[in-house]
Amino acid sequence: MVLDPGSDSYRHLTEEHVDHRFKGLPPDAAGLTVGELAAQRRNLFTGGFTTPVLALSAERLEHNLRLMETYAARHGLAFAPHGKTSMAPQLFRRQIEHGAWGITLAVPHQARVARAFGVRRIFLANEVVDAAALRWVSGELDADPDFRFVCYVDSVRGVELMDAALAGSDRPVDVVIELAAGEGARTGVRTEAECAAVADAVAGARRLRLAGVAGYEGEVPDADPERVRAWLRRLVALAVDFDKAGRFAGLDGIVVSAGGSAWFDAVADVFAEIPELSAPVLKLLRSGAYVSHDDGHYSAVTPFNRVPEEGALEPAFRLWTQIVSRPSADQAFANAGKRDAAYDLDLPFAQVVRRDGAERPATGVSVVSLSDQHAWLRTTPEADLEVGDWLGLGLSHPCTSFDKWVLIPVTEPDGTVVDYIRTFF
Amino acid sequence: MVLDPGSDSYRHLTEEHVDHRFKGLPPDAAGLTVGELAAQRRNLFTGGFTTPVLALSAERLEHNLRLMETYAARHGLAFAPHGKTSMAPQLFRRQIEHGAWGITLAVPHQARVARAFGVRRIFLANEVVDAAALRWVSGELDADPDFRFVCYVDSVRGVELMDAALAGSDRPVDVVIELAAGEGARTGVRTEAECAAVADAVAGARRLRLAGVAGYEGEVPDADPERVRAWLRRLVALAVDFDKAGRFAGLDGIVVSAGGSAWFDAVADVFAEIPELSAPVLKLLRSGAYVSHDDGHYSAVTPFNRVPEEGALEPAFRLWTQIVSRPSADQAFANAGKRDAAYDLDLPFAQVVRRDGAERPATGVSVVSLSDQHAWLRTTPEADLEVGDWLGLGLSHPCTSFDKWVLIPVTEPDGTVVDYIRTFF
Repeated sequence: MVLDPGSDSYRHLTEEHVDHRFKGLPPDAAGLTVGELAAQRRNLFTGGFTTPVLALSAERLEHNLRLMETYAARHGLAFAPHGKTSMAPQLFRRQIEHGAWGITLAVPHQARVARAFGVRRIFLANEVVDAAALRWVSGELDADPDFRFVCYVDSVRGVELMDAALAGSDRPVDVVIELAAGEGARTGVRTEAECAAVADAVAGARRLRLAGVAGYEGEVPDADPERVRAWLRRLVALAVDFDKAGRFAGLDGIVVSAGGSAWFDAVADVFAEIPELSAPVLKLLRSGAYVSHDDGHYSAVTPFNRVPEEGALEPAFRLWTQIVSRPSADQAFANAGKRDAAYDLDLPFAQVVRRDGAERPATGVSVVSLSDQHAWLRTTPEADLEVGDWLGLGLSHPCTSFDKWVLIPVTEPDGTVVDYIRTFF
Repeated sequence: MVLDPGSDSYRHLTEEHVDHRFKGLPPDAAGLTVGELAAQRRNLFTGGFTTPVLALSAERLEHNLRLMETYAARHGLAFAPHGKTSMAPQLFRRQIEHGAWGITLAVPHQARVARAFGVRRIFLANEVVDAAALRWVSGELDADPDFRFVCYVDSVRGVELMDAALAGSDRPVDVVIELAAGEGARTGVRTEAECAAVADAVAGARRLRLAGVAGYEGEVPDADPERVRAWLRRLVALAVDFDKAGRFAGLDGIVVSAGGSAWFDAVADVFAEIPELSAPVLKLLRSGAYVSHDDGHYSAVTPFNRVPEEGALEPAFRLWTQIVSRPSADQAFANAGKRDAAYDLDLPFAQVVRRDGAERPATGVSVVSLSDQHAWLRTTPEADLEVGDWLGLGLSHPCTSFDKWVLIPVTEPDGTVVDYIRTFF
């Protein structure tokens, strides 16, 4: 089982007390447990929640979980959704229940969170040379025979540091060679010759085992469908060459992994061409942003725009703010800012206005800037906006939205809050 | 007393268990309480901490706390440092111990955190029209006769919404009229005539009391010393006019408040000119960024650059990261990104490299971009940087640094960790 059935961490989440740690939650719910509050099925708009408050749509979340499960299955891909997006173990669990092979993470701290919630397959899509973190990994591997951990290597020195830090481990750590997405791209080995040198170093390391190859096509310079496919073919060719050279001898599976949230159609296409190797190939897709999707960057770059016949993700977040100031005909200010909304790729999008229980489009309202705790709004003459109105904002970039909220209400279309999602950043 | 002596929330912080919630902390400390870990006085570099990890210098923090205490006292200012910067009750307590009148906050959720830690004087430098939040404020006021709460109003409609939400309160809520810093500036009433209209509305509200005037000179358009002083004189004149008109009759103190972290020298100068009014004037300065200061934006804009004879703040943060990849002669990657470092005003600054216990300047290394979990480094030929090195980064903008860390080690110069600061965002 991918999830340890003995983990009672999920139950502990429902037993946490609602208090000052959780912004947006009803002050008059203080003293209740999160589970008790969820059982009350309060309404987000009338149940005492304070603004700003981020809400996650229950049905859109479920839609997105199903869609990527279906997509991965249809294309013969194993799926290890990137957990760094949400850092929400309740979502990790649902991703696993929706067929995920395991969870991808970016740094050892994130792996600690997943392990605390019983996740038994972790793909750490990054180099790790931190001795203290590696000792922890080694301890987890030794303590749980069902725990599978794979991480990147991209340098001989990194391999040496890992091997030294893992002295004393019983089980070797599985590593994959990271192939860089190009010159000037992010981490990863730049050339096939260097990849071979790093693989040689792994072969010579006592406490590492070469498990495959991986990379991130999202960093291909000047990415377009052809360049991304060309790089993915390099990655596949590297796996084939390594296999021919006997580098994967003895494995019961060979990992080939790629795939963020912008090019998984290309990954599906190219990975479908992987020839038979000496062991079954685990074609591991790692997309993470799909879980909430968004109204900005990922809405624009999702592969489903190119393959609409395969479905469409739905933006699941809405940030509810309140108008606190309307100092002039062309300006208004809402009570949410950089502490509440993603701002690294796009500013939030004004979507809907609620007044006296009625909701309408936020015509003529746009977010033009964020302070730490304020959204600056520009209003045209058609905008009907006054102090006290609630303004619903769409967001761009799931990763920098989740990380601003510790406990996120999950809502039905009428605003009924049916669950609360806890994050750990 | 500004701090409720009966609050045992601070003790609860030391009793929290070290676990997956706190990134950077030693995995092998799992199970210890925060207090027990602090008592071990581990070293940040050798004590099992994992990278990335943010550290706060104990001596620089203390220096900054003392300097602003001295500054405010020298200039006859009451001080309510903005708590939104750190959202760290342990720092609120130290600010109060260093003479602060109370704590400034930006949104009701932040006030809930401060109240949970016994803070009895809160200046909420923002409009609040959220009915659920106002009911909570009202409940706190009714339950604790020693709790003083002041917030902004800037519209007649806002006054009406507040008064309606506070129906049933025993004690009125103190409000100050916010004067906008200019046309196109943030929240606040634009003209003196409108200020009078809002003050009239407050006078007619049953559950509000007009306590003074306030604003934020940091939003003065095209701010320079003269424009900032001109606006501050407008603010003082508004207080004088209101006082002459009898609007403060019956108060035992009149609040006049301004002062972020860029212009408190101008605030000190202009507030020194406030004439005698019908009640003593509480000249309330609200600077918050000073507590950690920074290596970027606030280092450039601090008033101490103009009045060096009054002292100098010291940047107290250093973000320790580790080099995980060195794929080419001119590139390297550290394992910290947007989840770990402020990036809204400037990118982090490469300061020092640690290898084998020795520290030296990070010559030839600069941060050129941040991904979610990676720092992109450019290196010149003089840079001596390899995989495994620790890289210490300076940060710009305290508000967006604190909010990325839940528990922050406080270090002595040799790296000994003497305390842990908990934040609540």
